[in-house]
Amino acid sequence: MKVNGRHYRTIWVAEDGWTVEIIDQTLLPHRFEIARLTTLDDAARAIRDMLVRGAPLVGVTAAYGLCLALRCDASDQAMDEAVQQLGATRPTAVNLRNALADMVSVLRPVPPEERSGAAYARAAAMADEDVAISRRIGEHGAELIRRAALAAGSRRVNVLTHCNAGWLATVDWGTALAPIYVADEQGVEVHVWVDETRPRNQGAALTAFELGSHGIPHTIIVDNVGGHLMQHGLVDLCIVGTDRTTASGDVANKIGTYLKALAAWDNGVPFYVALPQTTIDWTLDDGVAGIPIEERSGEEVTRMSGRAADGSVVQVEIAAPGSPAANYAFDVTPARLITGLITDRGICDASAEGLAGLFPEHASSPAE
Amino acid sequence: MKVNGRHYRTIWVAEDGWTVEIIDQTLLPHRFEIARLTTLDDAARAIRDMLVRGAPLVGVTAAYGLCLALRCDASDQAMDEAVQQLGATRPTAVNLRNALADMVSVLRPVPPEERSGAAYARAAAMADEDVAISRRIGEHGAELIRRAALAAGSRRVNVLTHCNAGWLATVDWGTALAPIYVADEQGVEVHVWVDETRPRNQGAALTAFELGSHGIPHTIIVDNVGGHLMQHGLVDLCIVGTDRTTASGDVANKIGTYLKALAAWDNGVPFYVALPQTTIDWTLDDGVAGIPIEERSGEEVTRMSGRAADGSVVQVEIAAPGSPAANYAFDVTPARLITGLITDRGICDASAEGLAGLFPEHASSPAE
Repeated sequence: MKVNGRHYRTIWVAEDGWTVEIIDQTLLPHRFEIARLTTLDDAARAIRDMLVRGAPLVGVTAAYGLCLALRCDASDQAMDEAVQQLGATRPTAVNLRNALADMVSVLRPVPPEERSGAAYARAAAMADEDVAISRRIGEHGAELIRRAALAAGSRRVNVLTHCNAGWLATVDWGTALAPIYVADEQGVEVHVWVDETRPRNQGAALTAFELGSHGIPHTIIVDNVGGHLMQHGLVDLCIVGTDRTTASGDVANKIGTYLKALAAWDNGVPFYVALPQTTIDWTLDDGVAGIPIEERSGEEVTRMSGRAADGSVVQVEIAAPGSPAANYAFDVTPARLITGLITDRGICDASAEGLAGLFPEHASSPAE
Repeated sequence: MKVNGRHYRTIWVAEDGWTVEIIDQTLLPHRFEIARLTTLDDAARAIRDMLVRGAPLVGVTAAYGLCLALRCDASDQAMDEAVQQLGATRPTAVNLRNALADMVSVLRPVPPEERSGAAYARAAAMADEDVAISRRIGEHGAELIRRAALAAGSRRVNVLTHCNAGWLATVDWGTALAPIYVADEQGVEVHVWVDETRPRNQGAALTAFELGSHGIPHTIIVDNVGGHLMQHGLVDLCIVGTDRTTASGDVANKIGTYLKALAAWDNGVPFYVALPQTTIDWTLDDGVAGIPIEERSGEEVTRMSGRAADGSVVQVEIAAPGSPAANYAFDVTPARLITGLITDRGICDASAEGLAGLFPEHASSPAE
């Protein structure tokens, strides 16, 4: 997508043919800066410290991290150690594990001297696949928005989203926002309610930045507001992303998603989750019991960074001094609250049957 | 309650016998400062700009604002104009209207030359009544916490609260927090999950400050977290306040309350609302349709103030530049999601029948 009129992906190989470049998302929306990753440690740190975030982008970054590792040491042992280091950066998104497993299955049979080249080729293919997948999610989801536009008559369609599942969360296009970009391309008038998404404010910082850069009408709201909007008919549909989807259709997404799903359910507002199949964990059924939920530092809650009057970016303490804070990064929305899953293969019910219909090759694998 | 070992109420008449003093809550938790109100305009501004907030305290401040007005001009016309100015400061809390109506009914028959004195006497009585009411709410609600403690065995009772309905929202003790203070006094071990409560962060700023000053164990969480905690059995009960309660038991409280009530309902967690009878609007039944919801400046969403590294309090911009923000201050939680109302007369169902049982003198007045 475009930033200041220039097209960017969120991750790419630099002109030197091996350095990996990313947009440093911790600086957005205040500064747009490119960060260079030259080592395995750089890549692991970029994921852990959330210079890159969003399940699909985390997966592709891990794949490139493995490329950087193999450039230095292409032995089986080095590969296994790199996979372990990268796999331990963040626990919730299954894309990380899936991307690394994919890389290893491709690279294990390749002789060490050819592994680095093969790794870069596979990572590049994975990035391209992610773009194609996101585009297809966008096309399937845009159909829902077009239908809502017909129902809305001459009024704009109001979509509520949580966190950032836009192009900044993927390689391009996004998951939850892809349908909005495609609908906009098709001439549908869309307005997006952007949940701020505390504590890291990915909504106000990243989603609003993306939508603003692209010229899509949107309004930032605090995370508390969505229920009130739905009670008053101000939301036509909700679309969010997911970091891990179980075989039965439960989704782990950014903390607070569950609360919006409850409000949608209570008010009869359709609640969709957009996902590439790479976020599906076919080994899990019960999301609340089975998906590990990352706990991050309480300082993300008690401190906030922003632009001071002189334009500098500063951090301020916003809570009562001495009060502890807990910081759960995700929650699980049970399938029963989800109207449908928007995947790259089409839209299905959030259920084992729904997913099996679209992904028959996995139909027998859910754990009992 | 105590701040730095000294007992404070949130509002009082200064030693000169007429100036009204308040704690400037916009500076908390960064600075503890007393503000002086000497005119009607001062009082109206203190309410509108939220130097004082919380439905009960807003009501008492309006009463004292009328005292300040009558000190200058005690005519019927001046009284009516002051009531109109004070009544227009904030639209959602009904205490404001009720307190002013109470004052006028007492003062109308009093000759103008005696009105100022009578007004101060009535406002002082109202403040004392508010303290007594809060204490009674605390005693009734503490019984619920004691029961939860028995069920929890040797574990601490976990109470979740939203916004600030503590002593800072009343004259003393609080509404939602009063049961916690009383239970603590009685030796019950309580831990409070404190919702941050964006955009004005009354939870992280005021509730955490109150609880910390009083030595009650608590943990700040962002507003997105409560559902996850309830899914995992980490909340024994929720207690919140209300700015307006309808005759059928719907409550308008700080934006986001409705989302927590939905999560409590979905997880079988008891959800209580604590209220002085002054927040009951006997003229309304349907809260969602009938209670006006205040919309405040979007800058409260896109800007945040906090302590910089040098100790100064600064404001920073936290959102994508140019993105608009909407700021609804309250939402309505339907009675069907509320386990019970904790009032100064006892605990009742959130229903017309429940309220009529405790307040039979109003039983016939609900609008059809």
